[in-house]
Amino acid sequence: MAATMFGKNMQVVMSCSKSKMWRHLATSLSKSQLRCMSQATFKFNDLQIEPAKNLKSKPDADKLVFGKTFSDHMLEVYWTEEKGWGAPKICEVHNLDIHPAIKALHYAAELFEGMKAYRGVDDKIRLFRPEENMKRMINSASRAALPTFDGGELTKCIAKLVDMDKDWIPHAPDTSLYMRPTLIGTEPSLGVSKTTEALLFVLIGPVGPYYAHGFQPVSLMADPEYVRAWPGGCGFAKMGSNYGPTIAIQAEAVRRGCQQVLWLYGEDHQLTEVGTMNLFMHWINANGERELVTPPLDGIILPGVTRKSLIEMTKQWGGFNVVERTFGMKEVLQALKENRVKEIFGAGTACVVSPVERIQYMGEDYHIPTMEQKDPIWNRCWKELTDIQLGRNAPHAWAPVVE
Amino acid sequence: MAATMFGKNMQVVMSCSKSKMWRHLATSLSKSQLRCMSQATFKFNDLQIEPAKNLKSKPDADKLVFGKTFSDHMLEVYWTEEKGWGAPKICEVHNLDIHPAIKALHYAAELFEGMKAYRGVDDKIRLFRPEENMKRMINSASRAALPTFDGGELTKCIAKLVDMDKDWIPHAPDTSLYMRPTLIGTEPSLGVSKTTEALLFVLIGPVGPYYAHGFQPVSLMADPEYVRAWPGGCGFAKMGSNYGPTIAIQAEAVRRGCQQVLWLYGEDHQLTEVGTMNLFMHWINANGERELVTPPLDGIILPGVTRKSLIEMTKQWGGFNVVERTFGMKEVLQALKENRVKEIFGAGTACVVSPVERIQYMGEDYHIPTMEQKDPIWNRCWKELTDIQLGRNAPHAWAPVVE
Repeated sequence: MAATMFGKNMQVVMSCSKSKMWRHLATSLSKSQLRCMSQATFKFNDLQIEPAKNLKSKPDADKLVFGKTFSDHMLEVYWTEEKGWGAPKICEVHNLDIHPAIKALHYAAELFEGMKAYRGVDDKIRLFRPEENMKRMINSASRAALPTFDGGELTKCIAKLVDMDKDWIPHAPDTSLYMRPTLIGTEPSLGVSKTTEALLFVLIGPVGPYYAHGFQPVSLMADPEYVRAWPGGCGFAKMGSNYGPTIAIQAEAVRRGCQQVLWLYGEDHQLTEVGTMNLFMHWINANGERELVTPPLDGIILPGVTRKSLIEMTKQWGGFNVVERTFGMKEVLQALKENRVKEIFGAGTACVVSPVERIQYMGEDYHIPTMEQKDPIWNRCWKELTDIQLGRNAPHAWAPVVE
Repeated sequence: MAATMFGKNMQVVMSCSKSKMWRHLATSLSKSQLRCMSQATFKFNDLQIEPAKNLKSKPDADKLVFGKTFSDHMLEVYWTEEKGWGAPKICEVHNLDIHPAIKALHYAAELFEGMKAYRGVDDKIRLFRPEENMKRMINSASRAALPTFDGGELTKCIAKLVDMDKDWIPHAPDTSLYMRPTLIGTEPSLGVSKTTEALLFVLIGPVGPYYAHGFQPVSLMADPEYVRAWPGGCGFAKMGSNYGPTIAIQAEAVRRGCQQVLWLYGEDHQLTEVGTMNLFMHWINANGERELVTPPLDGIILPGVTRKSLIEMTKQWGGFNVVERTFGMKEVLQALKENRVKEIFGAGTACVVSPVERIQYMGEDYHIPTMEQKDPIWNRCWKELTDIQLGRNAPHAWAPVVE
């Protein structure tokens, strides 16, 4: 029997990051959060629907640019400190009417999630581990001092939104529907303080195939002068504040002839993330053991849903160890020299996996033989995860059907 | 002769942070920025004025809460990658009509400035070193991948806005008009990339006296688990992304019985900033020399205009050395034990100076004798800077008159 959106208890309880520096704060927040989650969440049962009056025409799947096309409807839920959450509403996508002093526009009191819905080979629509996104969204909300809610209720509202706009999910292979839950502080006041008003909204829109012309490996700029996240900061949360500072650095990578940024950290130049993706390396370690290694969730790494899924999936395969640990550029260069690096790839919702072919570091270009492996791990990851997302095989608990 | 807003050439050229990690990027950006600044700035001469139809009533000065009251008019200037800057416009304060996918709401593509205008003892209105705020705003824009402009043109537009709404500046002692130039990315698209559309706006509003009931010293939570900024990040820029992450930590300080956060950094627990202010300490150093010390602009410190002004001012006084260098909690605790710490105070636009009386660190409360000094430096700083801002003495180059 297929897992379905409404057949399961989707309630998500608060689950805080494992990062040491955040643990204390999470503990001290938990009382008010638990109250908030048990008594002050919006409810799917209160959902109001105002169908759009004008339905837009749908663009060709091969003309889609990521994040520029939105469907007919959006979800919105207002919150105030005084009254808690209002009723969720699905309505026509519309501009927001907001005061220029709202805290999101001045102090980045904002967070988001990235999720997808897939049209399966059986034409059924599936989400992918939405409870994982909800867990992270609630963690981000705690860290951002924005209101929390019951993630299961939001998942049901999102499933309804997807169901209403399911014709927006293209039929072409490898296309999908991107979903963007967002939470912003909307109190119109310039104090740097907890917002007393907020808006949660969800936009959805079709995205074309990531690999329309076959897998394209990427090149990375690795420059320790630019640091994405730091212990004691918010690297583990999907807050807007983690992204704005990366835009100029991404542009710098392009100026240097690379496509994305390999984010390093610390004196040993640890590899942490790739662009907006988590990072995996398949190598033979110094002890001669085959390993798939990825940086641990130590507070500076975003806990990606694809990351988690690949770890869980590859642990079942056998043939190599799956290890969460930090590793630095020195180790990688030594292993490259000794032909022990087999693959490096990014992992995220947009692309599932993104193979890496070159790293520019300290003025040198290093070739990564990711594309030259026979039966590479990255390709098997891509195949098995998309099989689940598209319902190619047996029903899977990770991919509940929207119905 | 008084320095006036329109009598001087206020053009501000790009001046990048001294931070090492930013220097490379700044160099590589400078060509396009210089082009942008010479050909693609808005001009004060193009300013359009649409007076507000309904003027609001002005609240009593003693009922003002910081950042909650705005005057009748705002300034706005639109920018697109294709057409550059439009004409600046002064119009009634109004809500923004923005798409929910704009980059400011998702990726914190946003920055701001904080400035004040003062009603002098001669009833003339003065700004305070606006060219310093413009310089920093343009630096922030480069780092945030937002469009730059000629800061002198913006200063002239702001002066006009202040002049139109000058009746909003209260007459009560120690009140002022807070000014909030803001720049946000407004392209409605979810790619993490340089925005192709932006909006610069300026809100202004009256603020009451910071020390209405005499100087109130503050208590600080100093916990190395929470880090505001780090090398390779954006601590030197006034981007929204530096502020959102601090809100939950500020709330934690209050829960622990403190009023603000003393931001520490690094293994030696360097004192960096206080709340949203720069930090000064007056002490007798280990060599027995009297010093006023403040952390250097090494990339993690916001280059405050009040900070800069106090350094320049106190260097003229004599009697102690004024030193920019890092110092850690161990040094401070040792000096406290030996009665060598005289004063610790924050410095910023909102309060000018904010004396500190207690630091909570590693489970201990440490009393700081800031309020017990005879003729303390913090008080003389406050007096001399407000003398300039309020035009109590001779005309001063730091405080141009709006006319």
